[in-house]
This record gives sequence, structure tokens and C-alpha cells, in this order.
Amino acid sequence: MGLHKVGLERVSRFFQIRNLLLRQAMAECLGTLILVMFGTGAVAQLVLSGGSHGMFLTVNFAFGFAATLGILVCGQISGGHLNPAVTFALCLLGRERWRKFPTFFLFQTIGAFCGAAIIFGMYYDALWDFPGCFNMTGKTATAGIFATYPGDHLTIVNGFFDQIIGTASLIVCILAIAFTVGFVVLVIGLSMGFNSGYAVNPARDLGPRIFSAMAGWGTTVFSFRNGWFLVPTFVPFIGSFIGVVVYQVMVGFHVEGEVRDRKAAEHENERIRLTNVKTNNDN
Amino acid sequence: MGLHKVGLERVSRFFQIRNLLLRQAMAECLGTLILVMFGTGAVAQLVLSGGSHGMFLTVNFAFGFAATLGILVCGQISGGHLNPAVTFALCLLGRERWRKFPTFFLFQTIGAFCGAAIIFGMYYDALWDFPGCFNMTGKTATAGIFATYPGDHLTIVNGFFDQIIGTASLIVCILAIAFTVGFVVLVIGLSMGFNSGYAVNPARDLGPRIFSAMAGWGTTVFSFRNGWFLVPTFVPFIGSFIGVVVYQVMVGFHVEGEVRDRKAAEHENERIRLTNVKTNNDN
Amino acid sequence: MGLHKVGLERVSRFFQIRNLLLRQAMAECLGTLILVMFGTGAVAQLVLSGGSHGMFLTVNFAFGFAATLGILVCGQISGGHLNPAVTFALCLLGRERWRKFPTFFLFQTIGAFCGAAIIFGMYYDALWDFPGCFNMTGKTATAGIFATYPGDHLTIVNGFFDQIIGTASLIVCILAIAFTVGFVVLVIGLSMGFNSGYAVNPARDLGPRIFSAMAGWGTTVFSFRNGWFLVPTFVPFIGSFIGVVVYQVMVGFHVEGEVRDRKAAEHENERIRLTNVKTNNDN
Amino acid sequence: MGLHKVGLERVSRFFQIRNLLLRQAMAECLGTLILVMFGTGAVAQLVLSGGSHGMFLTVNFAFGFAATLGILVCGQISGGHLNPAVTFALCLLGRERWRKFPTFFLFQTIGAFCGAAIIFGMYYDALWDFPGCFNMTGKTATAGIFATYPGDHLTIVNGFFDQIIGTASLIVCILAIAFTVGFVVLVIGLSMGFNSGYAVNPARDLGPRIFSAMAGWGTTVFSFRNGWFLVPTFVPFIGSFIGVVVYQVMVGFHVEGEVRDRKAAEHENERIRLTNVKTNNDN
Repeated sequence: MGLHKVGLERVSRFFQIRNLLLRQAMAECLGTLILVMFGTGAVAQLVLSGGSHGMFLTVNFAFGFAATLGILVCGQISGGHLNPAVTFALCLLGRERWRKFPTFFLFQTIGAFCGAAIIFGMYYDALWDFPGCFNMTGKTATAGIFATYPGDHLTIVNGFFDQIIGTASLIVCILAIAFTVGFVVLVIGLSMGFNSGYAVNPARDLGPRIFSAMAGWGTTVFSFRNGWFLVPTFVPFIGSFIGVVVYQVMVGFHVEGEVRDRKAAEHENERIRLTNVKTNNDN
Repeated sequence: MGLHKVGLERVSRFFQIRNLLLRQAMAECLGTLILVMFGTGAVAQLVLSGGSHGMFLTVNFAFGFAATLGILVCGQISGGHLNPAVTFALCLLGRERWRKFPTFFLFQTIGAFCGAAIIFGMYYDALWDFPGCFNMTGKTATAGIFATYPGDHLTIVNGFFDQIIGTASLIVCILAIAFTVGFVVLVIGLSMGFNSGYAVNPARDLGPRIFSAMAGWGTTVFSFRNGWFLVPTFVPFIGSFIGVVVYQVMVGFHVEGEVRDRKAAEHENERIRLTNVKTNNDN
Repeated sequence: MGLHKVGLERVSRFFQIRNLLLRQAMAECLGTLILVMFGTGAVAQLVLSGGSHGMFLTVNFAFGFAATLGILVCGQISGGHLNPAVTFALCLLGRERWRKFPTFFLFQTIGAFCGAAIIFGMYYDALWDFPGCFNMTGKTATAGIFATYPGDHLTIVNGFFDQIIGTASLIVCILAIAFTVGFVVLVIGLSMGFNSGYAVNPARDLGPRIFSAMAGWGTTVFSFRNGWFLVPTFVPFIGSFIGVVVYQVMVGFHVEGEVRDRKAAEHENERIRLTNVKTNNDN
Repeated sequence: MGLHKVGLERVSRFFQIRNLLLRQAMAECLGTLILVMFGTGAVAQLVLSGGSHGMFLTVNFAFGFAATLGILVCGQISGGHLNPAVTFALCLLGRERWRKFPTFFLFQTIGAFCGAAIIFGMYYDALWDFPGCFNMTGKTATAGIFATYPGDHLTIVNGFFDQIIGTASLIVCILAIAFTVGFVVLVIGLSMGFNSGYAVNPARDLGPRIFSAMAGWGTTVFSFRNGWFLVPTFVPFIGSFIGVVVYQVMVGFHVEGEVRDRKAAEHENERIRLTNVKTNNDN
């Protein structure tokens, strides 16, 4: 055991990264990988088994619990955002520095890409065995395993609001209580998943989309419906902004204001007390 | 960042509300909005997808977790009632002031109205695409997405007891342990949802009902079955009263009584001790 | 508010019960009522809706969460057994006095009876509307809403082991960690519910059975399959005994033994130390 | 009660085992028994009821909650591995001694064997009543109740990666936060169960497989697909190794390194301080 432990420590020293931002970004990468691996895995299981090994509810549970696990894995190191829209909201509020935003966005997308690739490898045989292998549309479409696509009924305007409402709901609940993320993702899936598969997370959508373009579905994943992919990639940031505003106007400003008022009052009392003391001393 | 933070604080000061009751009412409004948005969203997803993106269980989960999230968002500010029948029970017990009741009722109903409106906007395309768009009855009825309606088998008398039993169960469990609300709403849905969709919450029912009357379903939402809407709007308060009585008679009075007895005993002991001390000192 | 509070306290004093055993028995009664009300409610919803408002999983969730709620409601007062087989196990281990057993058994059965009666009232219209109203057998049987009945494939010998295994599993897990009861009930339903509906609780089965005999299903609820009802009424106690033995032999005895050894060792050390001190003083 | 307690203590002393490793191994045995009993019970309920008392989701929940319960039962005594691949990962990291590995592997497999035997006894009547009683293949196959078998679409190469990915995911999440095991097993079932039934646990697969060979399915359980059973028996250890590497490279090494750096820095500061003190004293 002695030798074993010495060896472990030598390996540990070799791989240690001392740059804080890089370390946090790598943790975000692993967390998003876990989120997307389990999430898209559940979609793959549902689609490829033709419904025998899953249903819409299992996908909701998988994304919800996958978000919980992803946050538990990287939370203590990087805060466990797993979602550029969350990083964006925290930067807006001044709780994180803006330079974290592009780095986290990049590593979250890389993690999502890798998570999709792992599921592609895992269900490679099942995919080739499936009638609709590499289909983009129709009942046997498989592209939806990785990225999200709008339902037939959805117009671009409604799709726009769909992503805004979903992301704003996510941000309001996260700002209130951080540890609820998994729950929120589950509930969003249960109630807002019908229009376009509740991406509400640019990294979760963009990484797997790039991967699926490379893996065989081709550039249609980007050109589908005149560039639908722009909606889940950029609209969540607008939703994030609205979520921040709603939460702050309804709850946040008043709580913060109360804290500020109390501090000011204490400061004032202290000033008066000191003045009195001084006056007394002068006497 | 400096400028960013200064700007944030100026905005914060501008929007801050200092009236406690109004602040609490706004928090209740946001919490009920979240409850109704996620809850009716799950019903909409089930109905409009024709069962492919939901089932009765997903609606139960959505209302249960939505209640949990709504309470987490506003709980620390307003107590997280989200339901006029809960506010009513707490007033009955003397834990809240009676003047809170009308204010909370109003703001909870406004929140429920807004939550229904958001889901209407979110699924606007899907609704127009749906065969039974704006139907009140039949297999493709959509009015039930927002407010609750009785099943065909239900008479007004049984519907009356349905709401009483549901609300009384809710109140008994909430009085025992406050944080179980989400669980209770979930379990009520799992076991008491068949008769009339387990409203057990006047705000959750009235707000979306008013909205659906305005959005296109018309005044039938009120006249349906000779004014069924009066049942989920007023009967929950009777259920709330019964729940308070049952809990107090079975558990509450004895626990409170024990506390009172113990205090009285301590007081008596203290009096005797003091008398003895005095007597000893006199000697 | 002053008058309101004075009135509340006067009512409180009037109803207060000072006998500890009776108070605990009433809490058990309320807890078992909640367990059976939500549990049989879920079965009723599944059966009477013909599967549209429930499935086997919703019944499992309902019993699991109902057990959790029942325990939360009465746990701090009576320990939250809700099940005579649990009371029996705790008496066997010497953690509760034997005289609690008959009292708790009685009140748990009364609670289960009342829970069944509430659900009967709640779904009265739906029951009369149902094709198989008051049927004992066949696809539209409704007696199974209240008490449990064996599947067609089950012999009496296998049914015997079914109840033993179920109750023993319950007791092993409860003895390990008390707060898991809800989880255990859920898991038992998910994996051991096919044979005879996982009663594993004499009160949960006997109370509703007596009620259903009185409410219209008649004495067949007792005579069915040559007195099947004796199995869920008495066999759980054998299962409880086996669960206690298994847990104690595998885990309990060694943990308790270790505690005893440590105490003995400390005692011995203390004795030696004192002897030394005395010897030193003697010098 | 006095006699009762004295008797209990005498029995306790008789059965007490003082060897720590044996005690831990017995706890692991009980924990794995619980995991496999509830897990395979859910599969049996699904298969033998023909889908009326279960679905794929109930199996996922059963394994997830069964893992949670198994860990709660034995966790404080043995750490609650329940899985040789977990013991292997902890030995690799130097957190457990290597000699624990064979002992735990043996007792975990014995526990899994017993869990399978209990379910076989519980559903003995239902099994004989089932059309496909003792079938290995086809729609009515029952061998899959106990051990896992690959889907028709799965090649041996993909099956190899399937077990590696599943086990590596399990190990990454467990290394991050220990108490998430139940969640992880649930999520793996929701997203990685379609290929070959997510064994990811050599004991959970080997014990029930040996049992099913003895109980009537014969040696086909080993010869199926040219020895498929070797994949769930040995490949999880490779997955375990990869999981350890991934977690350490992405998160573990940096966290440990930071702790080491901080300690070294404190040590250095202390040295400098002491030097200064000495220098000052010398003056």
C-alpha cells in the first residue's frame, strides 16, 4: 500500500492544474457532460426502444436528476451552473465576473458535445438497428436525441416566447433557492416540454447539435426550419434577463433594500451613540 | 464592474417597496404564479399533445413540485401560503392577522391569473392547432387546462364533499408539518383527482377561470353545470375549517395543553421556591 | 383578535386529553387514517377511472408518500408506527411496552376504517356510476379498493410467504433507519405488489375490510378464498418476528455488542485508574 | 419486561461477532440482498404481470430506491458499497485496503444470490402460472428477471462499452458525492438501460445468475451468446478504473493538490515564523 500511495501522489502532482478559472471551467465541463449524457441518453432510450424502455416522463426525470448530479459533481468547485444562461444571469447581477461567461460557455458546450458523443457510442448498435437511423423528420426521426427541434405546430414567434418563458422560469427559481435546479428542470420538462423540447440551455443544445452534424445527420441540423437552432442558442439569454428582472422586481430588490436600510439604521444609531459619548465625555 | 454595480444599486433603490404587507402580497403573487404556471402548463401539455407528452401522473408531479418551488420562492418573505384556504386556516388559528386574508386572496388570484396567461401564450400555436380549440365539453375540451370542472358522474352534493375532504386533508397535513405542502399536493392529486381535478385552492381555480373567460372560452366557464365554479371557490374554506378542527382535536390541543401545563407547573415551582427563599431570609 | 385568542384557548382547554397512552393512540389513529385515506383513494381513482386517472405506479407513490405524511403528522407524539406489525417489532426488541400493542392495534384499525369511509364518501357517485359497482371478482371488481385480495395465481402457501417476506423486508429497513418508512412502502409496492397487493399491515387491511363489509360488499370480504383475510391480518406478525431476527443477527447484535464492549472497557479502565490513584495516595 | 430484556441481552451476546472484516462483510451481504431483492422483484412483477403491475420506469425506481435503502441499512458499518466495482474503485484510490476486495465481492455475491432466491420463492406461483416459465429467449423470457442479458441489437463490442460507460458514470458520481448512489442508479436506469439492462454491478449480476442456473433455467444462463455473462462480471472493473481516472483528472487531483499546497504553505509560514522567533530571541 505504501508504494501504491506514493504512486498515486506522484500522478496527482503531475496532473494538478493551478489556474483557478481553468479548473472551474473543467468542472463545468464535467458537470455539463453528466447532464447531457444522462439527459440525451434517456431520449435515445425512449426513441430507439420505440417506447418499451421509456416515456416522456422518464426523459423529464432523467434531465432533472442529471442536473442534480451534474451540480453535485462540480458545484463546490465552479458553482454548478451547467448552463450559459445561468452564468449570464449571475454576471448580470454582479455575482460573477463577466470574463467567466465566455470561458464557461465554451467548456459547457465542450462538455455537452462529449456527453452526446458518449451516448452516440453507447447506442451505436441500437441506432443502426433502428428504422429511422439518421432521419431528421417523421415518426422515426433520431436527430432529436441530441439537439432539440420545434414541433410541427410551432411558429418562430411562439418558439421565441417558448424559450424566453422556459429560461425566465428557470432563472427565477434558481435565484430564489440555488439547490432547486434539478427540481426546476424536472418541472419545466413536465409542463413546458411539448413545443420544442425545453432546451432552456444554449450549451445543452449547441454541443450535441454540433456533434450530431458531425456524426451523420449533416448540416440539416442547422438549416432545419430556416435556422431554428438560433432560437435555443440565443433566446435563452433574453429569457435569463427577463427572469432576473422579474425576480428582482417582485422579491430581490425589497429583500436587499431591507438589508441596506437596516445597515444604514445601525450606522446612524452608532453615529448618534458616539456623538453622545463624546458629548458626555466633554462634560 | 464598478459602474455595473453602482447602476444595479440605483435600480434597486428605485424599485424597493417598504410596505411589509404589500411586499408579502407580491411574493404570494409570484409564488402562486409559479404554482399555476407549472401546474396548468402540465395540463396543457397533456391535453394538447393528445397524451404523447404527459399523463395524469405528470400533472400530479407538476402541481406537487410547482407548489414546492412556489413556496421556496416566496416562503421566507410571506410564509408561502399560495392558497387562500391556507391563509384562512392560519387566521382561524390566530397565527396570522385577519386583514392579511383579503389582501393575500386578491394577490394570489392575480398571480394565478398571470400564470394561466403565460401558459396560454406559451401554447398559443398548439392550442389553435388542436381540434377542440376553445371547446368546453367532450373529449377534446380545453377549458379544463385552466380551471377545474366536475366529471360527468359527479353530483353537486358529492362535489361539495370532494372539495371539503381535499382541502381538509391539505390543512391537516400542513398544520402538522409546514414543509410537506408539495408532497401533500402530489398525494392529493394521486388519490383525489378523479372527481373534479383537485382544485382545493380558490385562487388556483378562480384566477385561471377569469382568464379563460377573457381568452375565448366565454362566460360558460362560470355558468357550466349551474354555477359549479362556486364549489371550488367557496367550499375549500369549509374544508379548511374542518381540517383545523380535526387536527386540533386529534393532536393540536393536547400538544398545546401539555406546553401550557408545563409552563404553569414551572411557574408554580418558581413561586414556591421564592416563598421558601423569602421565608429562609426572614429567619 | 384578543377575543378570538381567548376563545381559542378556552376551546383548547376543554378538549385537552391528559392521558399519554390515549393521546398517542389518537395520533396513531389520525396517522393511519391519512395513510389509508390517500392509499385507498389512489386505488379507487385507478379502478373507478378505468385507468385514465392512475396506474399501478400512482398507487405505489400514493401509499409511499401517504406513509411519509402519516408519520410526519403523528411521529413526534406516538412514534408514527401506523402498522401493528411495526408496534409488534418494537415491543419484541423491548423498545416499547407490550401494553401499547393492543391499544395501538385498535386505534390504527379505527383510523384505517375511517380513512376507507372517507374515500367511500368521496367517490360515492363515481362508484355508483361504475359498471362493477360492489363486485367482488372479475375485471370490474371494486372490493380491492379497500382491502387486499390474492391474485388468481396465488396459493395459500405462497400467499403466506408473500406476507412474511414483505413484512420482514419492511421491518429490516425500518430497524436500520426509521425515517425510510415511506421509501420502503414505495419500494415494496414497486417490487412485491403483484401477488396480493402488499398489505404488510394488519390495520391497513382489517379496518377497510370491516368497512367494506358494512358498506355493501357483504361478508364475502371475509369468506373469499376460504378466509384469505386471515393471511394479511396475522401473517405480518410472523414476518415482523423474522425481520427482527434477520436484522439483529446480521447487524444489530454486533453494533449493540460493540457498544457494550466499549462501555465495559471504559469501566475497567476507570476501575484500574481509581485503584492506581488509591495506591498512589496510599504511598 | 425485565425477564424479556435479560433474555434479549443473552441472545445478543451469543450471536455477537467481534471480527470487524466479517461484520462489515455481513452488512454488505444484507445490503446487497436488499438491493437485489427489491430490484429483481420489480423486474419479476413487470414480467410476470404482463405489464399490468409495472413498467420500465418502476424497475428504475425500484433499483434506485433499493440501492438507497441497502446503503442506509449497511452504510454505517461497511460503507455501503453493495457493488464490487465500487469496492474496486475505493481500493484503487487507496481509501480501502485491497484485502477487503475479495471478501466484499464474495459476500456481495452471496447477498445477491439470496435476494434472487427470496424473489423466486415470493413469485413461485406466479412463475409457474406464466406462459414462458423458464424460457431463456422470446417475448415471454423470464431469465432476465434475475441476471441481465443483451438486447438482440447488441454486438459484443458495443456491450463492452455499454458496461464501461455505465460503471464509469456510476463511479464518477459516487466519488463526487457518496450519498447520491441511489439517484445515480435511478438515472442510469432511465438513460442507459436499453442495451443490456444496466448491470454495472458484478455481484448484482453474478449472484442471481448462479441462482437462476440452479433454480431451473440451466447452464444456458452462462453459455448465452458465447458467454455474454463475462461482460457484466468483469467489464465493470474496467469501467470503474476509467471512472476513477476521469474524476481524478477533471476534479480530484486539483482539489487534493490545493489542499496539499495550502498545507505546504502553512508549513513554510510556520518555519519562517519559528526562524524569526529564534532570530529575535538570539538578539
